[in-house]
Amino acid sequence: MSSTIPPLAGKLSGLQSSAIRDLLKLTARAEVISLAGGLPDAALMPRDRIAAAAADALSGPGCLQYTESPGWAPLREVLAARESARLGRAVGVDEVFVTHGSQQALSLLAEVLLDPGALVVVENPAYVGALQVFRAASARIVALPLDSEGLRVDLLAELLASGERPALVHTVSNFHNPGGVTMSAERRRALAELADAHGFWVIEDDPYGELYFDAPAPAPVAAYSRNVIRLSSASKIIAPTLRVGWMTAPPSVFRGVELLKQGADLCGSALTQQIAADLLADAAWLSGHIESVRTAYGARAKALVHALRDRFGDRLTCTDATGGMFVWADFTDGTDAQELLPRALDAGVAYVPGSAFAVDGGYRHSMRLCFSTSDAATLTEAVDRLAGAGQSAQL
Amino acid sequence: MSSTIPPLAGKLSGLQSSAIRDLLKLTARAEVISLAGGLPDAALMPRDRIAAAAADALSGPGCLQYTESPGWAPLREVLAARESARLGRAVGVDEVFVTHGSQQALSLLAEVLLDPGALVVVENPAYVGALQVFRAASARIVALPLDSEGLRVDLLAELLASGERPALVHTVSNFHNPGGVTMSAERRRALAELADAHGFWVIEDDPYGELYFDAPAPAPVAAYSRNVIRLSSASKIIAPTLRVGWMTAPPSVFRGVELLKQGADLCGSALTQQIAADLLADAAWLSGHIESVRTAYGARAKALVHALRDRFGDRLTCTDATGGMFVWADFTDGTDAQELLPRALDAGVAYVPGSAFAVDGGYRHSMRLCFSTSDAATLTEAVDRLAGAGQSAQL
Repeated sequence: MSSTIPPLAGKLSGLQSSAIRDLLKLTARAEVISLAGGLPDAALMPRDRIAAAAADALSGPGCLQYTESPGWAPLREVLAARESARLGRAVGVDEVFVTHGSQQALSLLAEVLLDPGALVVVENPAYVGALQVFRAASARIVALPLDSEGLRVDLLAELLASGERPALVHTVSNFHNPGGVTMSAERRRALAELADAHGFWVIEDDPYGELYFDAPAPAPVAAYSRNVIRLSSASKIIAPTLRVGWMTAPPSVFRGVELLKQGADLCGSALTQQIAADLLADAAWLSGHIESVRTAYGARAKALVHALRDRFGDRLTCTDATGGMFVWADFTDGTDAQELLPRALDAGVAYVPGSAFAVDGGYRHSMRLCFSTSDAATLTEAVDRLAGAGQSAQL
Repeated sequence: MSSTIPPLAGKLSGLQSSAIRDLLKLTARAEVISLAGGLPDAALMPRDRIAAAAADALSGPGCLQYTESPGWAPLREVLAARESARLGRAVGVDEVFVTHGSQQALSLLAEVLLDPGALVVVENPAYVGALQVFRAASARIVALPLDSEGLRVDLLAELLASGERPALVHTVSNFHNPGGVTMSAERRRALAELADAHGFWVIEDDPYGELYFDAPAPAPVAAYSRNVIRLSSASKIIAPTLRVGWMTAPPSVFRGVELLKQGADLCGSALTQQIAADLLADAAWLSGHIESVRTAYGARAKALVHALRDRFGDRLTCTDATGGMFVWADFTDGTDAQELLPRALDAGVAYVPGSAFAVDGGYRHSMRLCFSTSDAATLTEAVDRLAGAGQSAQL
């Protein structure tokens, strides 16, 4: 029987798979030390504690059924208490919405907050998971650069003064992916004041805030304005398998997200939400666990930064890596990171070229280097290989 | 500090919370026997088997990290084998995509398959989870009625003959929610032939197919055409908490869904997917487990239907309940089910009025009755209360 194959929606032609995902497939060779990934270290995840929580959850009633769209109520209570401590005010349970990882919060928020053509301000270089969602929502995207104090809020003020009216501003305020920097307290306050004065939303995307190595990051942008929607996640402090992210948002946004969550997937998993609640409520254990992750990542970060500065000298600058999982490095000697990559792979090291995070081109001399999944000696070896590839490139 | 609260997206004003969810909140009183819900019975879910699978998954490597967007590969292999048996052809792993419950498959498919204004044909009465998604996608919806053999495919043929060109047709082919009926083999073949001849997609939404009480349902619509995307789920045969649904789809659709899944939530939970794979691969245990659910639900269904026919006689007709979780009943004596509901609640019984499932109004004399979570004696008592409420209504 001959059959006519139906078409797909037109918008699909405008969407592309993540360049980084495609790159990761190319770099997945056993002999390559990959600083290209963006995963937390599975060896540091609390497997036994999760197993105990799973056994507990499954021995009690109530864990097998559908749960409420905004999340399992006891988890929301735990999160509200944590957010209250973070924001310095009493955050109600009715402000906390559990999502299927914080990526789902981004995608639901894009639907709730954006009409087609709405202006969205992102950071440059950008978190690509956010960029993908805003592009899919047909937003008009303006990217403002980061510097060592985070988003250039002064340029946002100029944009507003020129008459532009963003619907939202997206920021990874702490230990930026990919930029490695943290927004200063002054800029947080200034961003919040602009949001209040001009009436736009800020999405403060904060998966890494608890992974500080020296000192905690400044108070969240959300501490300064109710126009800020704060996102966080259990993925980096416990384990991605839980798919537990959360959002702290004002009531109108909460209701919009609830409506759309019903259509998106009805609800999350009561099982993984109970596991998350168990671990997040166990404050003594949790603080020790997160401290152990901080200590491990901090040592790795320092080893990577030390090796980069030692091997490259003034041919390269890089961020200080005071938290999170990434170092951003810029070649100052004209090396093109995209062109270097094949030689780097041949030398046995992988990274993501900065251009993969550039909103409108650029960052050709930059790289994102992930230190979370390699020990100090391996990171040092990776930098040696990178330096070797760079020298062979100059021959 | 005075602040300007930003607006939400315009499309939100057109979305409504599920009327059924709102109703369920009203009917959640301890003294009310609720036939209004739509949940599987948690008492029949394999808690200990899930706990054993969770312990196994968490004792091995690989379960804590992010997983691939289309799902954990071993789960997809198990599902491909099951789908192969169901469809009577070799279904490849690359045709099987795991979603966060089958509701997520519906929502991703609406984005992949529908341009705004595209024509979508649904069944009347409709599965409201699908209707909500198609409405959110700004589809133009035409509803065609069910009869005792399922979707009136003859009316679809008339619609096509009139020049209408649907982008997709959505059907719950087996043990319809809410309609209770199963599409006949002849209509399945006819629907597939129309899809091939006219080039439209069919979404065959099949969460209940394995819950047959007398004989298995006919071969899926998907057995007859590659233009059919088949959805199913572990929620009704194992437990909703896993949030494991799946889709069998041709490569172009698979790729579109993969692209959008990355933006929607990156990936599912490796933990719950490993649990699902464990249980679904254990064929001997699974067939015994599903048989026990069939036996329990079948006895409940028969008790409900018997009581309805016994108490109401020719004042009501109802479906035979040969599988699934629902009986659809129509008052033939002019009783308005919506008007009866407050008296029914006072008498201690709840149901969902048919109008909640009507696409363009109607079904005012109908009810959906869920038998999955009450035993036979309770169902009989519920019908007694309903009959009492009906009599008081006539006074």
